[in-house]
Amino acid sequence: MTPREVIQKKRDGGVLTTSDIAFFLRGFMSGQVAEYQMTALLMAIYMNGMNADETFAFMREMRDSGTVLDLSALPGKKVDKHSTGGVGDKTSLIIAPIAAACGVVVPMITGRALGHTGGTLDKLQSIPGFNPQPSTEKIKRVLKEVGAVIMGQTEDLAPLDRRVYALRDVTATVESIPLITASILSKKLAEDLDALVMDVKTGAGAFIPVLKDSQELARSIVFVCRKMKTKIVVLITDMDQPLGRAVGNALEVRECIDYLNGHGPADLDLLSITLAAHMIHLGGRARTVEQGVRMAREAVSNGTAAKRFREIIRIQGGNEKVMDNPDILPKAANTRTLRASSDGFVGRCDAKLVGLASNALGAGRSRVEDTVDASVGIYLEKKVGDRVSRGEPLCRIHWNDESRLRDALPLIRRAYEIKPRAVKSRPLIHAVFSG
Amino acid sequence: MTPREVIQKKRDGGVLTTSDIAFFLRGFMSGQVAEYQMTALLMAIYMNGMNADETFAFMREMRDSGTVLDLSALPGKKVDKHSTGGVGDKTSLIIAPIAAACGVVVPMITGRALGHTGGTLDKLQSIPGFNPQPSTEKIKRVLKEVGAVIMGQTEDLAPLDRRVYALRDVTATVESIPLITASILSKKLAEDLDALVMDVKTGAGAFIPVLKDSQELARSIVFVCRKMKTKIVVLITDMDQPLGRAVGNALEVRECIDYLNGHGPADLDLLSITLAAHMIHLGGRARTVEQGVRMAREAVSNGTAAKRFREIIRIQGGNEKVMDNPDILPKAANTRTLRASSDGFVGRCDAKLVGLASNALGAGRSRVEDTVDASVGIYLEKKVGDRVSRGEPLCRIHWNDESRLRDALPLIRRAYEIKPRAVKSRPLIHAVFSG
Repeated sequence: MTPREVIQKKRDGGVLTTSDIAFFLRGFMSGQVAEYQMTALLMAIYMNGMNADETFAFMREMRDSGTVLDLSALPGKKVDKHSTGGVGDKTSLIIAPIAAACGVVVPMITGRALGHTGGTLDKLQSIPGFNPQPSTEKIKRVLKEVGAVIMGQTEDLAPLDRRVYALRDVTATVESIPLITASILSKKLAEDLDALVMDVKTGAGAFIPVLKDSQELARSIVFVCRKMKTKIVVLITDMDQPLGRAVGNALEVRECIDYLNGHGPADLDLLSITLAAHMIHLGGRARTVEQGVRMAREAVSNGTAAKRFREIIRIQGGNEKVMDNPDILPKAANTRTLRASSDGFVGRCDAKLVGLASNALGAGRSRVEDTVDASVGIYLEKKVGDRVSRGEPLCRIHWNDESRLRDALPLIRRAYEIKPRAVKSRPLIHAVFSG
Repeated sequence: MTPREVIQKKRDGGVLTTSDIAFFLRGFMSGQVAEYQMTALLMAIYMNGMNADETFAFMREMRDSGTVLDLSALPGKKVDKHSTGGVGDKTSLIIAPIAAACGVVVPMITGRALGHTGGTLDKLQSIPGFNPQPSTEKIKRVLKEVGAVIMGQTEDLAPLDRRVYALRDVTATVESIPLITASILSKKLAEDLDALVMDVKTGAGAFIPVLKDSQELARSIVFVCRKMKTKIVVLITDMDQPLGRAVGNALEVRECIDYLNGHGPADLDLLSITLAAHMIHLGGRARTVEQGVRMAREAVSNGTAAKRFREIIRIQGGNEKVMDNPDILPKAANTRTLRASSDGFVGRCDAKLVGLASNALGAGRSRVEDTVDASVGIYLEKKVGDRVSRGEPLCRIHWNDESRLRDALPLIRRAYEIKPRAVKSRPLIHAVFSG
């Protein structure tokens, strides 16, 4: 077998065997297969796809290229949640403490902002002192004591995925369902999970905007997890407009704290409770999803979820006082209000444009090495379906740098559309797949 | 513009502009575009094709990456012939002297054996002393004095094509009509030609075996040459069985010398005279192709073509006595005769298998750095359509190394097929395209 033969097989629409994939990917790790051969294969995969077995084999090779956590010594089911990425999506910060409060063990490995979307890790790091990179020993201790840890990827987590992703990023081969499946699961399934809840976003602000493609990704994820004997639920949820009202790191953390303290937007509440309920159910703490919903609501209303979040912050080195006084979070020097130019209803609040605007303000990254301004962002006073009068605030922009504000403003203006009549709103949860 | 955007455009079936192609290919030469991006683009081109304008732009960037000959000081039209490669195809050695004898200037740059096919340069180097790499000054002098030079590629001929080809070779992106067109013509059109005669092979022993694909290549070549204002004739000729009877370097040179001295196989004669006639016609030495045919025949029968070949050999340092005494060519130590196992007719003499067998004996290369054994090869006593009796010789194998013979024998046996009835033979010339 030669690397060329493997590429040729996929080029011609053939199905790669597990050993074809092992040969090629291990060869790549050892230097026998060149980067220029990897990208030719990736393009052929982009064009001709991979079936479920190929995707599984690809995922497993990537996962096994690095360290796979061993959490077998910990009592309780290990369950994580993962999202394909969105704007204003801060559910991880809410549901990790809820699930932990309900007895589920949550070893959550999470990522940084990239593209127009935010990153859970960047959000958490707006809390003074928070350490996103605890040692393996610390991870186990935190999981035992608190039930949840939220941490960044380490170098030894699926290094092959990292190398492959870097190549995909510069060769226009990112948007491939099987490659996305393999990439996500190679990292998630290195966490030694019993179950996974996936939130696949759809709509303007999702990396995969078309519902049909999101469904294909959902089915692909279900298949691979089933084959790994990891319980899986995939929710396809809306990312046509941002989730909640806050977009930007510190603003989002504040919204989470407010939510856990008892008040938050309805969409954030619905999605957080639903995701947490599935985690509680898959984690064996509720007999049904409905019971999971009741338990999740109870954990918020009786304050145990907030208490868990406080513990997570404290044990990972952050200033827990933020739970009582969110004003210790970084604050932008200025705010500017964008107002409605006519009477009517919000017909569109484009998640991608809001995300890009937030990034333009400094909240995100265009390159991995960019630093993030935790304080800036956008607070949405109005969302799709809301009635507005001319001159009423649509959103408040939290900004520090005037030239960045100038870049962001036209994006935010384009994001909002006021229509004379109310539009039919999209469902928040489009579909649920399980396996 | 970024390399990724160019790749994405082609990935999505778009048409690249001349400036997209210039940006990408010049970026590749300067190191701004990585090899792993080049191969992703090549795979996208393989999958989605390029139109004629894209192919032209690609070709011109590759040609202009290196030295383009300036032969404007030489009187007479410069015409070359190029073949897509075959087995037993030694026409270059015959038609360069014929065309030169008829007043055409032939600056022939030719290649080495690779894959299952032979290379003109390797054949010529079986003549003791022959120098395939004369200096540019020498080339001009030889062209002036003899009218034809047959030489190898220099490092500064279309270096971008060489780099791209090396990547295509290991990423399964060789068999692409637009990429093949651009590759061939980037080198041929660096010869400062007035006209080109292309021999596109079709059949089992051709790199492009299917006639429909050969026709597509022919049209693609005609378009690009027309746009370059280089006169072009493309013949699609048969390579289902080897051309002539000799396969292997010294054996083929001997067949050429015999032919120029007045006796050779009919298929070799027909193709050589036809190709030479088109060169003479495009070179302005004959008003019609038919007149070109008569002139070419005359040059063979009156010995002027043989005289030119002798001069080409002498002036490029080879031992010209080979024309009178072909026995000074290298000879294999042993011969072995393969005999018919039944009565009937030769139904198949598979060019690819014969080529592979010849290579197995040592006549070709599996890697660029392999050395070639000039003496070994196969002489076909019987070809398709010939009646054979059981025990009659099908071919003679000229061999030196017993283990190599063992590798070659099953290939030769598989190449021949004896059928009870005569099969309809394929035409030698399938089609002619001109522009």
